[in-house]
Amino acid sequence: MRVINFNAGPAGLPLPALERARDELLDYRGSGMSIMEHSHRGKEFEAVQAEAISLLKELLSIPASHDVLLLQGGASLQFAMVPMNFLPPGASADYVITGTWSEKALAEAKIVGKPRVAGTTVTPDKRYVRIPAQSELELDPKASYVHITSNNTIFGTQWMDYPETGKVPLIADMSSDFIWRKFDVSKFGMVYAGAQKNIGPSGLVVAIASKDLISRGRKDIPKILRYDTFAENDSMYNTPPTFAIYLMRNILAWVKQVGGLSQIEAWNREKGRLLYAALDAMSGFYRAPVEKQSRSLMNIVFRLPSDAMEEKFVSEAKKNGMVGLKGHRSAGGIRVSAYNAVTADNIRSLVSFMEAFAKANG
Amino acid sequence: MRVINFNAGPAGLPLPALERARDELLDYRGSGMSIMEHSHRGKEFEAVQAEAISLLKELLSIPASHDVLLLQGGASLQFAMVPMNFLPPGASADYVITGTWSEKALAEAKIVGKPRVAGTTVTPDKRYVRIPAQSELELDPKASYVHITSNNTIFGTQWMDYPETGKVPLIADMSSDFIWRKFDVSKFGMVYAGAQKNIGPSGLVVAIASKDLISRGRKDIPKILRYDTFAENDSMYNTPPTFAIYLMRNILAWVKQVGGLSQIEAWNREKGRLLYAALDAMSGFYRAPVEKQSRSLMNIVFRLPSDAMEEKFVSEAKKNGMVGLKGHRSAGGIRVSAYNAVTADNIRSLVSFMEAFAKANG
Repeated sequence: MRVINFNAGPAGLPLPALERARDELLDYRGSGMSIMEHSHRGKEFEAVQAEAISLLKELLSIPASHDVLLLQGGASLQFAMVPMNFLPPGASADYVITGTWSEKALAEAKIVGKPRVAGTTVTPDKRYVRIPAQSELELDPKASYVHITSNNTIFGTQWMDYPETGKVPLIADMSSDFIWRKFDVSKFGMVYAGAQKNIGPSGLVVAIASKDLISRGRKDIPKILRYDTFAENDSMYNTPPTFAIYLMRNILAWVKQVGGLSQIEAWNREKGRLLYAALDAMSGFYRAPVEKQSRSLMNIVFRLPSDAMEEKFVSEAKKNGMVGLKGHRSAGGIRVSAYNAVTADNIRSLVSFMEAFAKANG
Repeated sequence: MRVINFNAGPAGLPLPALERARDELLDYRGSGMSIMEHSHRGKEFEAVQAEAISLLKELLSIPASHDVLLLQGGASLQFAMVPMNFLPPGASADYVITGTWSEKALAEAKIVGKPRVAGTTVTPDKRYVRIPAQSELELDPKASYVHITSNNTIFGTQWMDYPETGKVPLIADMSSDFIWRKFDVSKFGMVYAGAQKNIGPSGLVVAIASKDLISRGRKDIPKILRYDTFAENDSMYNTPPTFAIYLMRNILAWVKQVGGLSQIEAWNREKGRLLYAALDAMSGFYRAPVEKQSRSLMNIVFRLPSDAMEEKFVSEAKKNGMVGLKGHRSAGGIRVSAYNAVTADNIRSLVSFMEAFAKANG
């Protein structure tokens, strides 16, 4: 029996994509071997990778000005590769700090070059409960790029409108909200996303970057760390993580089959509406710390009256078939990760449980 | 029907390891979700990763002086990380060049620092048919490390005895022959291996490195590129490629179950004996270019009288259920990759086919 999986990542994946993987795990389409046993340069895998990229281009209407790159090493490796490629000596880059992952991206950039903080919403007690307004950002028009974290998994905030950065390329870590909806790719110099939330298993990173930005990357760094190496070799400079790409293909095919990103967005908005409405209705028992206009639809965080009550909540939810609700160890509380594979019915089940729990314990 | 898979990597994997993955793909041990949907910090996945590392330590008798690290990015990322960590400005490192992958490792090191070539077996027409003797190496006792490629997938050569490097740490890219047998880990400063030959799917790299060497790595490079980051965080600094690690665990469990590395080595030696004996017996038709003492047991390469005959060989072998025999595009000819999942019976089937083919076309 499958449980309701609210894990923050690696996270629940759409069942049809997993069933497809299971059914052909020992023999991919009559080829006599698993897709993971195929050469990455054979026609079977090349078709899978081409379809994955083509589905992504279709779903997001990616313009010809941008390349899709399939990378490894997690978003954490991109925290280093972005400044290695685009922050040469003597230049500056702007970082907007909205949570732990922005802080980590900034820390790596500081080792490579001279980034500056163009805005932060950190509170005196080192938490984050909102996304900054455009007017709060002090952007440097000469910056090499502006870096943001589009969704903050730990503190549960999300950029609903992206900042205007003029001619400075905007780079976004979209790991935890990639393809929760369609967005205007042409507004970004680059977006990157670890796969393990909305698009696949861990071990794969998808980047979409403008060809112009890629071409301006440094040439004096190791070849495997240059984005142009991946762009020029169709992400086959070295062996890609083939099975992870295959699973991403299955998941993107599922997204298309259920109606594309307009349907996915509608579901995500419905899920968020249901859960935040419940939190607001029971605000005497559940406390949602994030400011309303910054509330994430991917990671919904809240507190209960006490740590002990939170433990009881997690434990009883588990008995009711709902797992992954414990907040990040650095933030505490409850975190509901409601990525694309989580359904509105899953959220309805959770809300019913929350109502019963509040009634019994409030 | 499963075919006989001689792919060079990604390569055939042991069927029991794949069956185990298939059977629990939607519900890992009654947990209600796939292992790839579990948090990397949950008890289920942590147990899998701990078992994978423990099996590797047991199979190779890894001494307490060395750490096992689980990395990403392929061996190609290690070509950059090794000199970034261990080749500081002003220092030198020795590279022994025995094929294309050694050349690539050297090229990345040249971008980072000042490596030197301590030996090469390149021929005037840019091929490699042998491993150098110890007496041919010009090792610098002040080098930061000596780098070798233990098996050369493309040209089919393999180090049977590793070079003596005195007090200089020996670092080996073992991607294509890791755990083909047991070896003395204490002789190495570090070994690393892309998983997609003997131990798993692509997207995972295993490294075994001495704690002393790790501790001497540079601290002024991005944190995600430092080996000590992985050592200090039990390879969980960021989200590891969980499903690839799970599959490696299944494969290592299979290795142990069939009798450990002494059994694996016996099988590999038998496979090599069978195939090279056939090549030598039919040397009027099949030509094995590698010098006998340097012959690889992992990748056995040979030529037929003409390119057209090689094409026919690959095509007819496929009709007989044997795939993956085409040589690397840079070397041509035939390549039989006989990693751990290939059985002696698979090689016997191939030899029978080769005999019939030579008789019909010789």
